[in-house]
Amino acid sequence: MAGTDNELKKKAAAARAAALELANLKDSRKRVALKAMAAALRTNADAILKANAADVADARRAVASGKLSQAMLKRLMVDNVKIEGMAEGVESVAKLPDPVGRAISEIEMDDGLILEQVSCPIGVIGAVFESRPDVVPQISALCLKSGNAVILKGGSEAARTNRVLKDTLCAAAEAVPGVPAGWAQLIETRREVKSVLAMDEYIDLLVPRGSNEFVRYIQDNTRIPVLGHADGVCHVYIDKGADWNLATAIAIDSKTQYPAACNAAETILVHKDIAAVFLPQLARALADHNVEVRGCAASRRLAKGLKAAKPSDWDAEYLDLIVSLKVVDSIEAAVEHINKHGSKHTDSIVTGSNKASEFFFKNVDSACVFLNASTRFSDGFRFGKGAEIGISTNKTHARGPVGLEGLVIYKYLLRGSGQIVDDYMGPHAKKFKHRKLR
Amino acid sequence: MAGTDNELKKKAAAARAAALELANLKDSRKRVALKAMAAALRTNADAILKANAADVADARRAVASGKLSQAMLKRLMVDNVKIEGMAEGVESVAKLPDPVGRAISEIEMDDGLILEQVSCPIGVIGAVFESRPDVVPQISALCLKSGNAVILKGGSEAARTNRVLKDTLCAAAEAVPGVPAGWAQLIETRREVKSVLAMDEYIDLLVPRGSNEFVRYIQDNTRIPVLGHADGVCHVYIDKGADWNLATAIAIDSKTQYPAACNAAETILVHKDIAAVFLPQLARALADHNVEVRGCAASRRLAKGLKAAKPSDWDAEYLDLIVSLKVVDSIEAAVEHINKHGSKHTDSIVTGSNKASEFFFKNVDSACVFLNASTRFSDGFRFGKGAEIGISTNKTHARGPVGLEGLVIYKYLLRGSGQIVDDYMGPHAKKFKHRKLR
Repeated sequence: MAGTDNELKKKAAAARAAALELANLKDSRKRVALKAMAAALRTNADAILKANAADVADARRAVASGKLSQAMLKRLMVDNVKIEGMAEGVESVAKLPDPVGRAISEIEMDDGLILEQVSCPIGVIGAVFESRPDVVPQISALCLKSGNAVILKGGSEAARTNRVLKDTLCAAAEAVPGVPAGWAQLIETRREVKSVLAMDEYIDLLVPRGSNEFVRYIQDNTRIPVLGHADGVCHVYIDKGADWNLATAIAIDSKTQYPAACNAAETILVHKDIAAVFLPQLARALADHNVEVRGCAASRRLAKGLKAAKPSDWDAEYLDLIVSLKVVDSIEAAVEHINKHGSKHTDSIVTGSNKASEFFFKNVDSACVFLNASTRFSDGFRFGKGAEIGISTNKTHARGPVGLEGLVIYKYLLRGSGQIVDDYMGPHAKKFKHRKLR
Repeated sequence: MAGTDNELKKKAAAARAAALELANLKDSRKRVALKAMAAALRTNADAILKANAADVADARRAVASGKLSQAMLKRLMVDNVKIEGMAEGVESVAKLPDPVGRAISEIEMDDGLILEQVSCPIGVIGAVFESRPDVVPQISALCLKSGNAVILKGGSEAARTNRVLKDTLCAAAEAVPGVPAGWAQLIETRREVKSVLAMDEYIDLLVPRGSNEFVRYIQDNTRIPVLGHADGVCHVYIDKGADWNLATAIAIDSKTQYPAACNAAETILVHKDIAAVFLPQLARALADHNVEVRGCAASRRLAKGLKAAKPSDWDAEYLDLIVSLKVVDSIEAAVEHINKHGSKHTDSIVTGSNKASEFFFKNVDSACVFLNASTRFSDGFRFGKGAEIGISTNKTHARGPVGLEGLVIYKYLLRGSGQIVDDYMGPHAKKFKHRKLR
């Protein structure tokens, strides 16, 4: 154990050293490296497929003996279409604007004393994931583009695939002058995730990919900041002033467009003033889309044949064609329900009233608050970010769909000409100008 | 214990409820409330002094029996000058621009589908501090201005003073319409700090005030994000191309202007090419300012009478008139020393070479990197922020001197007109416009 921990620390130290170099790599070089990585994925497709076939063969046995789920097996499998998808993903990251070196603010503190705030990489990103070998090229590309080193910890079920992918990407990138060796480190197979979670001296930010339980486990077992969310309990609230057709379309899309997504709606709230006529229509439309509706007592009085919602339904993330339905007395009650039962992810109001939507915007404490739009729009690509690191329900650093901006921070550069603080103190103190230049 | 924990959770829940209301308070109301808080501090000066006298009397006995340090006693003491300082501090916060409701970005995703990113409060801030009752008005004012509720946990030695201050501030603020009761909660006296550190369900961000050991204890014992720093091991590197007078002035100011500050320099690095003549002059100038110099072997060969630096000196934060002095072979060696031994806080280069300063800016991995300026400029007020929450050496959320911007995050508001995601999928998918409006 001491030996393996040592190896872990060596890899982490190598990543940290590489991060300092990678932070200063020009974007032109990063683009060349990323394009080379994409090309190498295509060139090495056979080796990737071969490694994956071996992982899949083991995984099938694990499924047969009940040690692995069918879903995990499915996510593990790689084919030529998936490899092409990985390559295109890496190419699209190459094209994004460089998030590093952006002047955020500039202030003239005094004559010849200029303070600049410039974006820079965070340092070392830890990517922790289950199955899904496609995380390797995706996160590696995002980290390289943002000038961060990355420590990858995949599941043992994908060990061979992850190894070939990582070697392919590193060989291609490191052939480009300026890309430091060691910028991407793979933690091998059987090591515990827990050992990575304890590396707060070496890892600045964790990006988990996996099930809700997986992300929650990570959040609960590390002091390293985690960018992500465990739950996606999203709501659609249909106000008394809503257009009914529009409301139905938004509810259906939010629930059914991709029910397994975190931004799919789990609960629909309907204002009591329209419930008598509208709610049975909505329940029918949902049923027509094969959605199982679990209603509150009032809903079940209005619409026949609904299952009864249990108290736990209001906190449930079904990730399936199931929805809970509730009649609320007022917009205030809707907001209270959302703030109590939601996961601060994405919640939408359908209304024709400007007053109602502004109240909703102000009082729903979620990363994304929508008016007359499907909750499914909550997504980095749809938001125009070009890439998505994850959707964060944190209240610090980054919130909502996070693009490359979530992988950078900033530093302050002060250019002086010999100034000392003592001159700005005491009875004859010089005064600061604090003139905003940017 | 169960009973007290319950009380703690009640207070935390009250703070969370208040936070939702406070988030929407207009800045004009916040200004009125802050001015009322400042006025109340002056009006209630007698009650504050009386409570403080009782705390100080107990503290003197604790000092006599060795249970409290003189430094703690000194920080505990409040007089009329300090109360006026508190009131002026609260008034200056009133005048700052509102950090809430600022439009950060705006994008037209498609016709009638506008995405706005708006700054908003974080929620509930936990302020944990020792002695120093002045933290109560300062942090309370910063939190109210930024729309956050606050949970204050002071030391038991200041219990009476903190209680009167908190009651004074709350009564004044809550008389202003719209300021919710419960926005500031004081956790009383004998309760363990640890119980507050475990409240990650209720507290979104911790702001500690106290010694290095105190801050480190907090960082090591909570999953809540902590805004701050434990160490301030800052460097001045004097390059071969430096102006010697300027270099000496900056070194003296960085070390002696206020040695107990986190942004005071602890180590001075001198390029070998100028060391033979310059280093003895610098050592003499430091000695003239009563600074004890601990030199590396090379320094001690060049300047007589220097104490020998031990390996631990390169990592030491003296917070006193002591400095370590080292000859380095190159700017690369200086940067390597800083990245290895520094605390990623503030480091300054003195040079006449643009190439050298750009190298230093790019490669020193610290929150603040300075050229030809004292490390002591690393400060929220000097940076023009009008207030300082703390100086952060974190790599996420906020870095360097942090003003009110460190107490806000953002939410995304999407205003649609009935859009659903399904229309943007598949072979006849509508295309997003992603036109940047702001």
